[in-house]
Amino acid sequence: MELGNWLAEVRRRRPLVHNMTNLVVTNAVANALLAIGASPVMAYAHEEVEDMARISGGLALNMGTLNPELITGMLLAGRAAAQAGVPVVFDPVGVGATPYRNRSADEIVHQLNLSVLRGNAGEIGQIVGSGGTVSGVDAMDAGQELPGAAARFAREHRTVVVATGEEDLVTDGTRSWVLHNGHAWLSRITGSGCMLTGIIGAFVAVADRQMGAEGYAEAAVAAVTCLNLAAEKAAALSEGPGTFAAHLYDALYTLSPDDVDRGARIERWGAGT
Amino acid sequence: MELGNWLAEVRRRRPLVHNMTNLVVTNAVANALLAIGASPVMAYAHEEVEDMARISGGLALNMGTLNPELITGMLLAGRAAAQAGVPVVFDPVGVGATPYRNRSADEIVHQLNLSVLRGNAGEIGQIVGSGGTVSGVDAMDAGQELPGAAARFAREHRTVVVATGEEDLVTDGTRSWVLHNGHAWLSRITGSGCMLTGIIGAFVAVADRQMGAEGYAEAAVAAVTCLNLAAEKAAALSEGPGTFAAHLYDALYTLSPDDVDRGARIERWGAGT
Amino acid sequence: MELGNWLAEVRRRRPLVHNMTNLVVTNAVANALLAIGASPVMAYAHEEVEDMARISGGLALNMGTLNPELITGMLLAGRAAAQAGVPVVFDPVGVGATPYRNRSADEIVHQLNLSVLRGNAGEIGQIVGSGGTVSGVDAMDAGQELPGAAARFAREHRTVVVATGEEDLVTDGTRSWVLHNGHAWLSRITGSGCMLTGIIGAFVAVADRQMGAEGYAEAAVAAVTCLNLAAEKAAALSEGPGTFAAHLYDALYTLSPDDVDRGARIERWGAGT
Repeated sequence: MELGNWLAEVRRRRPLVHNMTNLVVTNAVANALLAIGASPVMAYAHEEVEDMARISGGLALNMGTLNPELITGMLLAGRAAAQAGVPVVFDPVGVGATPYRNRSADEIVHQLNLSVLRGNAGEIGQIVGSGGTVSGVDAMDAGQELPGAAARFAREHRTVVVATGEEDLVTDGTRSWVLHNGHAWLSRITGSGCMLTGIIGAFVAVADRQMGAEGYAEAAVAAVTCLNLAAEKAAALSEGPGTFAAHLYDALYTLSPDDVDRGARIERWGAGT
Repeated sequence: MELGNWLAEVRRRRPLVHNMTNLVVTNAVANALLAIGASPVMAYAHEEVEDMARISGGLALNMGTLNPELITGMLLAGRAAAQAGVPVVFDPVGVGATPYRNRSADEIVHQLNLSVLRGNAGEIGQIVGSGGTVSGVDAMDAGQELPGAAARFAREHRTVVVATGEEDLVTDGTRSWVLHNGHAWLSRITGSGCMLTGIIGAFVAVADRQMGAEGYAEAAVAAVTCLNLAAEKAAALSEGPGTFAAHLYDALYTLSPDDVDRGARIERWGAGT
Repeated sequence: MELGNWLAEVRRRRPLVHNMTNLVVTNAVANALLAIGASPVMAYAHEEVEDMARISGGLALNMGTLNPELITGMLLAGRAAAQAGVPVVFDPVGVGATPYRNRSADEIVHQLNLSVLRGNAGEIGQIVGSGGTVSGVDAMDAGQELPGAAARFAREHRTVVVATGEEDLVTDGTRSWVLHNGHAWLSRITGSGCMLTGIIGAFVAVADRQMGAEGYAEAAVAAVTCLNLAAEKAAALSEGPGTFAAHLYDALYTLSPDDVDRGARIERWGAGT
């Protein structure tokens, strides 16, 4: 898997990514997508989400500040995307924290054909049924069974699961990877996970749709690695989370395909996979 | 036209600018207005938008993340502003991308008396009927006929049209200017156009209302030039879009009227205008 | 009062702070809370605000971009918090600017048991009845009677009042403090007051609930002082409001309990108090 090619492809094709994301991170997601070379659009009105999803290269759904109107809009957009062959990424922010979040995540997971499910380890644990705890939106504790449960979920739902944390897990149910890049300050700025969800939306947008989950898994591995490498680069120039955030956008902008190929620390996971 | 005076006047009078803007850029617009010396307020509730518009110096409307409730609120605020003599700036973000955006922009353009219409060249082309394409909110391709069509639209609607891009066009229908300042990184941070819309709101707020479009045109030329010069200054200190954004606010804050008068690269456009 | 201990306690316990805040500052509030060591969550849906408030350490309500649905949600969350013993902080952003803001602030002040009322001097003057003027959300002019009226209000409502400005006032009705730290650039970035409201939410979350207003007052003094000291530190490294904002998060992150104890410039106010 030549990861640098994925970044080059995003820069070349500049895919339009339709984001339905949360109120906390909207600006950060848009800036991360612009910095890496994609073209973000945010659209929420039921009157237009289907049209916007259809003309996009990828649809990124994030339920951080969910409400019933937003969930309905996500279902409309998600179905339109699926019909048009546009890949859908879903980020179940804070699932596990309240019953309403659980019901809403469940609705989206079961009613849409997701190309990628992306959350922190605690959130993914909630959805794939390996346990784990969530307090609010960022505390988390993944169960020991996460990798196996995530792979099983990916196989059953023909999707890709990305569980982020100190190390990140990507699986398409057949193959799994553990990604070792990144920096602790990603957890000290709000929206780094949400940025990743948007960036994955840009990378799956340039995947070969015929390959399905296999292609989306590689796109996700490349996306996670790009953000993680940018974080490493940014942290080296920063004195805290404020300057880190500024340098992170710079690093997403200056990161080269070659940086990605040389910097990636990726491990195939699991026997016989 | 002594552009530096406009900046000095904004700093001296610190006009209240009522923004109804999109979810992506709310923070950026408020910070840009504070940095340049104006006083931003964001208010959306139908219960108060008329009251807020009336006590403001300028009203800036931005439909980036539109929905029916927002459009209705904009019409309420826009009519109240017009009755109170408060100038209204409208930014038709993403018009052309979906039918719903087209209908909504049309409604606002035809039901309100706009002092300034501000968009990127693709968006303005959609509205003034010179063609051009829009994909999502930031890709654009202006038709060749944009300057003529924009001037015609300005005359017919007694308004000022601002079309931004690599070069920026300002016209009140009688006079037109091409503005040559700016930096490419403005298109690599989200909301630079929306910031401009807010800043124009601050500059028209200090214009002589008796002069109508003539005064608003000069205010718009000054506003665009201030943001462009701040961008040039910021880019010289930055390594990418993240540090650029931070330095942009610094530059809006430190920019002097003298910097504006010396740095402005402005050209009158068109024969006999 | 050993202020540094409060900061150490926030870092140690990492309280979950449920914010219902405005669209302009959501990102800034989340980042400020993460930087200082707390765990922010934003949740607005009526379907979950009670659940979220109950599992939080503090609830911070900010009416900057209010609408009827938000106010109803705040009342739901605020009552659930009170029943669960979770302290509630309220920030009446822009009260005085429109009749709707006045009615809404009145509703919250009278229907909820607030642990802390936090606003700029003009806003607090409006609520405690000492006069003062508000234009939009940031201009202000406090009446001369503010300290006395604030103390009276605090006694009558068994709450803590925090009025910020060039100097900051904290009172629980019995004891009052004037805080002399801070930097003028706090008023040149949007949301510094809203960040403070969120940070107070984190500090009251670690207060001894049995002490009531007395403990919350000390928490508020510590919270204001931490943000003010971070601002002083950040300003020394910055050239304007953009770099200041980035350094402010760094400073919130690197500020030590010892910095707080040594840097605090606090004065007890009023004879016989």
